[in-house]
Amino acid sequence: MATPLTGACIFGQSGGPTSVINASACGVFETALKSPYITTVYGAAHGIKGVLNDQLYIIDEEDPQELALLPYTPSSALGSVRYKLKDPEVDDTDYKRILEIFKKYNVRYFFYNGGNDSMDTCSKVSRYMKSVGYECNVIGVPKTVDNDLYGTDHCPGFASAAKYIATTCMEVSLDAKVYDTGMICIIEIMGRNAGWLAGAAALASASGEGPDLIYLPEVDFDIDKFYADVERIYKEKGKVIIAASEGIHDKDGKFISEYAGEAAKDAFGHTQMGGLAQVLESMLKTRIDCKSRAIELSLMQRCGAHCGSQTDIDEAYAVGKAAVEAATSGETGLMVAIKRVSNDPYTWETELLPLDKCANYEKKVPMEWINADGNGVTQEFIDYALPLIQGETKMQKVNGLPRFAKLKKVLAK
Amino acid sequence: MATPLTGACIFGQSGGPTSVINASACGVFETALKSPYITTVYGAAHGIKGVLNDQLYIIDEEDPQELALLPYTPSSALGSVRYKLKDPEVDDTDYKRILEIFKKYNVRYFFYNGGNDSMDTCSKVSRYMKSVGYECNVIGVPKTVDNDLYGTDHCPGFASAAKYIATTCMEVSLDAKVYDTGMICIIEIMGRNAGWLAGAAALASASGEGPDLIYLPEVDFDIDKFYADVERIYKEKGKVIIAASEGIHDKDGKFISEYAGEAAKDAFGHTQMGGLAQVLESMLKTRIDCKSRAIELSLMQRCGAHCGSQTDIDEAYAVGKAAVEAATSGETGLMVAIKRVSNDPYTWETELLPLDKCANYEKKVPMEWINADGNGVTQEFIDYALPLIQGETKMQKVNGLPRFAKLKKVLAK
Repeated sequence: MATPLTGACIFGQSGGPTSVINASACGVFETALKSPYITTVYGAAHGIKGVLNDQLYIIDEEDPQELALLPYTPSSALGSVRYKLKDPEVDDTDYKRILEIFKKYNVRYFFYNGGNDSMDTCSKVSRYMKSVGYECNVIGVPKTVDNDLYGTDHCPGFASAAKYIATTCMEVSLDAKVYDTGMICIIEIMGRNAGWLAGAAALASASGEGPDLIYLPEVDFDIDKFYADVERIYKEKGKVIIAASEGIHDKDGKFISEYAGEAAKDAFGHTQMGGLAQVLESMLKTRIDCKSRAIELSLMQRCGAHCGSQTDIDEAYAVGKAAVEAATSGETGLMVAIKRVSNDPYTWETELLPLDKCANYEKKVPMEWINADGNGVTQEFIDYALPLIQGETKMQKVNGLPRFAKLKKVLAK
Repeated sequence: MATPLTGACIFGQSGGPTSVINASACGVFETALKSPYITTVYGAAHGIKGVLNDQLYIIDEEDPQELALLPYTPSSALGSVRYKLKDPEVDDTDYKRILEIFKKYNVRYFFYNGGNDSMDTCSKVSRYMKSVGYECNVIGVPKTVDNDLYGTDHCPGFASAAKYIATTCMEVSLDAKVYDTGMICIIEIMGRNAGWLAGAAALASASGEGPDLIYLPEVDFDIDKFYADVERIYKEKGKVIIAASEGIHDKDGKFISEYAGEAAKDAFGHTQMGGLAQVLESMLKTRIDCKSRAIELSLMQRCGAHCGSQTDIDEAYAVGKAAVEAATSGETGLMVAIKRVSNDPYTWETELLPLDKCANYEKKVPMEWINADGNGVTQEFIDYALPLIQGETKMQKVNGLPRFAKLKKVLAK
C-alpha cells in the first residue's frame, strides 16, 4: 500500500433523502474526524452544488453529541441536490471549478452519498481528477429508498422505508375494514421504475394484515385484469386493500397516473387530478359502488425515521465508515456496497465495487419474485426483505417527540 | 349502595376508530371478566348493530394473552358502526329489539365506546331501559381522535393521533426543506369542526421543526390573508410548511375543500378534485411558482398505533376499567371522563358525568388558544396537549412488525 494521502475531505449528499441518509453522514464524519490522514472534514451544502458554490460546512466545529444524533435524523442534514454533471469531454467547466475548490482546501478525499445519478457524479469526478493528475480518492456511498442501485444487495434507506410501509399497511388495512360496509382502499407507494417499495407492502400481508393486491411497475398493468382482481376480492370479502407503485404503466409504457382524462372522470365528467391512487379510485368507482380511500404515503415513507429499521441505520452508518476506511487505505473510484453473507441468521459485510459498474443502472425486482398473476410478490421477495427491517430505531425522544440533530453549519471562509 | 345487579354485560365500539380504542375494550374486558357480578362478557359486532342483529362475541372464550395485545392494536377489534338510534318516543322498534336481546342474554350492564353520537345512543338506551323498568346499568366510554367530546378534559384517541401528527410534521418539515429551491408543503389533517388535531401540528413547530402556518376550522378562513401569510414566509425563507384542518371554511361556512371549480382550476382549466390540501396547493400555484406537495395524513393519523402515546393508551384502558367499576357499583346513565388534576407534573383521574350532559355537544378549541392572526395556536394549547403525548408505546413487535391482537370471535348462539 502506498503512503496514504494527507489532506481534507468533503462529504456531500445528493438525490432524494431517506430516513437514514444522515446515518451514513455520521459514519463518514466520525471516522474521518478520527483519521490521522484527514486534516479537516467538510460537509458540502446541497451536494456537488456546495462544492461548486464554495459552501462547505466545517464538521470539526460541530458538537460530537449532535453528530451522534444524525443516524436518527431523517432528510439530508447538509441539504441535498439534483444536479447532473456534464461529461467532462463535452464541458469541463464544473470540473475545473471542483478542482479549484479541491486545491483551495487541499481536498484529498471526496465522498458522495446518493443513488444512480450520484454514483455517476462520483465516477466522473474520480475520472477527471485522475485525468488531470490531481491526487484525490473518491468513494461513493450508496443510498436510495428505491433500492434500485446496482451491485449492492440492497441500499441503505430502503429498509426503513420498507418498515414504515409495511407497518402503515398493517395499520391502514385494519382501519379500512372497521365497518360492515364495502370498502376499497388504495395505497400509493413510491417507485417510478422499480417496485421494491410497493413489494414491501407484502411484508404486511405476510404478517396477516395487509394489501390483497400489490402492483409493481416491473409488470405491465392490465386494467381489465385489475378490474377482475378487485371485483373477485370484493365479492368474496367486501373489502379490498390495494398497494401500487406510483410508476405502474400499461403495455405501451403510459403511466396509469396519467390516465386522468380518459377512464378517470368523476361523476360530473371532470377530469380527476392527483396521483395514481386517486386515478385508480376513480376508475374503480365506475365498477363498484362502495366507500373508498385513496392514500398516498408521500414523503412520509422516506422520512418516517420514527419507524426506522435499526438494521438499516447500522448498515447506513457502516457504508459511510467503510468509505473513509477505503479511501484512507488508498482506494478510489469505488462504491461501498452491502453483501449479504447469509440470510438466516442474517449477516452482511461491506465490499467495494467499481463506481462505473454501479452508476446509471437501475436494479429492478426480478420477474421471478413477482407472482404469476402480476398482483403480488413471492416468498423469495419476503425472504429477501424481511431481515432488513429488523430492529427498532434507538431514536432519542424529548417531550415525547424525536430529538433531531441540530448542526451549527459553520461555513469555511 | 344497593346490591349490585348480576348478569351479563355487552361492550360495543362505535364511530371512527382510533389507535387506542381497543385499549378501552381491554380495560372493560379484563375488569368485567374478573367481576363477581358479571356472568358473561359479550362484545357486540359493529356496535349497536351487533345488538340489533344478535351478533355477540363471547369474550370469555378469548385467550387472555390476545386480549392483552388489544391496547396496542388500532382500529375497532369488534368492528364499528355509524348508526344513530331514533328517539324512542318517535320510533321504539330498535329499543324493543335491544330489550329483547338484553333479556335473552340477561344483560345487566351495557358499555358503549364512542364520541358524541355514541354517547347519545348510550343515553337513549339508558333512558329507555329505565322507562320500561328493565334494570341495566349503562355507562359511556369516551373515544374520538377529534377530541371534541364535551365534559372530559380530553378524549382517549386524541393524544396518539396528536403524537403521530406532531412526529410526522417534524419529519415532513425536515424532508420538504432538503433542496435549495422553493417549496410549499401543505399537510391536511382530520377535523371537520374542531381543530384539535391540526393544532397538534404546533407541537412539532414548538420543538423546532414544524409548520409555519396552522389553520383551524374555529376561525373563518380568509383567502387573501392566507395568500399574504404564505407569500410573506416564502419571501423570507423560500419554504413554507402549512398544516390545515380538513374542515376550514370561509365566512359563509363554505368548506375550502369545496372551492374546487372556482379558484382551483389546473393549468388546463380542469376542476381540481381531491381533498383540501390539493385545493390549497392549486390555489397557491396561481400565486407562487415553485415545487409543492399536498399531503393528506388520511387514515394513518387515527390508526398509527406504532407511534402511539403510552399516556393515551393508559388513559384509554383506565376509562374502560372505570366504566365497569362504576356500573357494578350501581351507577348508570353516566359517561366516564378524564379530569386533569395537575399539569406539571401531569396527573389525572377519571370522573363520572351525566350522559345527557356530554352527548351531542362539540367541544371546540377555545378562541383564546388560537393566535390573533388565526394562523397558529398559543402556548396554552401547547401546555394542554404536550403532557398527553408523553410515553412511547409498549407495542409488541414480531419480525420487526406490530403484533396485533387476533380474536377468535366466537358468536353467542
